[in-house]
Amino acid sequence: MSRNRMEAFSDGVIAIIITIMVLELRVPIGASLPALRPVTPVFLSYILSFVLLGIYWTNHHHLLQVVERVSGGVLWANLHLLFWLSLIPFVTGWMGENHFAELPTALYGFVLLMAAIAYWFLERAIIAEQGRESLLASAVGRDWKGKLSPLLYLTAIVATFWATAIDRAPTM
Amino acid sequence: MSRNRMEAFSDGVIAIIITIMVLELRVPIGASLPALRPVTPVFLSYILSFVLLGIYWTNHHHLLQVVERVSGGVLWANLHLLFWLSLIPFVTGWMGENHFAELPTALYGFVLLMAAIAYWFLERAIIAEQGRESLLASAVGRDWKGKLSPLLYLTAIVATFWATAIDRAPTM
Amino acid sequence: MSRNRMEAFSDGVIAIIITIMVLELRVPIGASLPALRPVTPVFLSYILSFVLLGIYWTNHHHLLQVVERVSGGVLWANLHLLFWLSLIPFVTGWMGENHFAELPTALYGFVLLMAAIAYWFLERAIIAEQGRESLLASAVGRDWKGKLSPLLYLTAIVATFWATAIDRAPTM
Amino acid sequence: MSRNRMEAFSDGVIAIIITIMVLELRVPIGASLPALRPVTPVFLSYILSFVLLGIYWTNHHHLLQVVERVSGGVLWANLHLLFWLSLIPFVTGWMGENHFAELPTALYGFVLLMAAIAYWFLERAIIAEQGRESLLASAVGRDWKGKLSPLLYLTAIVATFWATAIDRAPTM
Repeated sequence: MSRNRMEAFSDGVIAIIITIMVLELRVPIGASLPALRPVTPVFLSYILSFVLLGIYWTNHHHLLQVVERVSGGVLWANLHLLFWLSLIPFVTGWMGENHFAELPTALYGFVLLMAAIAYWFLERAIIAEQGRESLLASAVGRDWKGKLSPLLYLTAIVATFWATAIDRAPTM
Repeated sequence: MSRNRMEAFSDGVIAIIITIMVLELRVPIGASLPALRPVTPVFLSYILSFVLLGIYWTNHHHLLQVVERVSGGVLWANLHLLFWLSLIPFVTGWMGENHFAELPTALYGFVLLMAAIAYWFLERAIIAEQGRESLLASAVGRDWKGKLSPLLYLTAIVATFWATAIDRAPTM
Repeated sequence: MSRNRMEAFSDGVIAIIITIMVLELRVPIGASLPALRPVTPVFLSYILSFVLLGIYWTNHHHLLQVVERVSGGVLWANLHLLFWLSLIPFVTGWMGENHFAELPTALYGFVLLMAAIAYWFLERAIIAEQGRESLLASAVGRDWKGKLSPLLYLTAIVATFWATAIDRAPTM
Repeated sequence: MSRNRMEAFSDGVIAIIITIMVLELRVPIGASLPALRPVTPVFLSYILSFVLLGIYWTNHHHLLQVVERVSGGVLWANLHLLFWLSLIPFVTGWMGENHFAELPTALYGFVLLMAAIAYWFLERAIIAEQGRESLLASAVGRDWKGKLSPLLYLTAIVATFWATAIDRAPTM
């Protein structure tokens, strides 16, 4: 099986995910500047998610560069990654609508964490198929960035609650 | 006519179907955990439909692998399959919003049944064109899984009503 | 300029048009059969539009089969066709929501008429580029079906009002 | 890295942007002609945005024609352009809903200005990679149209406020 269709399908899904987030930007009622205010946090979270999805897309692009044929396992590892990415518009909207409140932000972090893990699985699935001696295996062999990022996400999720706890702590 | 454009179009439609289901996940009001509760059944039905559409996409991928040229008949058999798949977001939403109630779940099963039948038609249309001696004909020749699955869907639809009937039956 | 990207873009737009019509099928409130009733006319108009868009897509597919290179004129003739097709979800929704009432149905017919005219323009633009002696020119040379269909649409639009006029006419 | 996937992704995103604007055309309540009136300004702004996005797509098409391989810099310059284009449905909707009022129209102009600047960046990024001697460099070398258009957008944004100021000025 060639990799072309998997690329095309992934491109389609990521293109749609990146674009439907715009639908969360509800057209405000009224033509004044204050009418734009409720849209601002949603817009900020849109920019963040756009950049993150852009990073995933370019990395996905680079990752598949070295792949020649894909197996069923790789197809499903890819669908698994797309599943977590597809939840980004939902958590982006929830986080934005609630002005980056504790729980929505933590859920946003959780979805990113799962996407990072899914990406790592996809990398493994491709290496398993290409063989340990392959170009990719040596390229990502000591991928400390890949191993670090889930850790960073976890820290960020914990930090969300911690930051709020500090906020709420009685000042001495 | 080459199969490339039919693949690209099907990929596009399936990618959109799989992604717009996320739009049914309405951003909840409020940032607390209970605010997420009404979304839970919709989310569960989203996972189910995502996996089912993933199965259809990978199978479609494998099926077209052996096809070289497509006729008008195959194009329409493919559009027929896409039609039933395109109804999945609607029935997924209805089933999820109603916490897997009897009728919506049966309708969900019905759409899956029709999709399975449409897939079977597509297989036949391709074989009719490639000839009985073709690779595909022998590969799916004794496709008992393909013949069994519509039967299983039918059973599931009936079971939905039966299960509810049992639920409602006066306990002795 | 190769025709590949124009095909891919058109496929993308038509795939999205054919799929977002499903978003007009609002998830009904309540899990009973009567809850489905308001969706029925919208669903019927969805089937009609799905088939019509399917016809456009397969014809578009066949038409571009004979094209090798596209000019700016053909690109814009194609965008013009896509513009009218993109209005189909809107008029489908309006016609469905109003149970095939007079004006929405006439507007639906008008959009189809304009799409047919746009398709005819695209055909001309391609022939103008390929030359009168080309394969396409002779294939569609006496395309009486293409010339007839706008006429039929016009008749249908007029008939919509006429039918309602008869309905409303005092019975003797 | 080949340019194919970047083209496919951009086509996908632009196809979705151009199509989801139609979702802003809310199906009107009632089947009469006055029911269509609130849709009219939204429809006019839809036509405008459709044409502008069509221009961007055809230009993008021509621009990438001369590119053979893309670097990370070009990928991100492209994503930056897509970001501003993705905001067009939002500002189109806001401008249309408010009957081309001052502020929404100025914001519409601002997004177009940023898209024009992003397009110019993309052009530079591609030239930087292809070398000053390349075909593209000489083709756009004295691209006074490209340099003029941001200026025109700026003038238009200022003119929006000026026009309203004149409107509001006490008549002598």
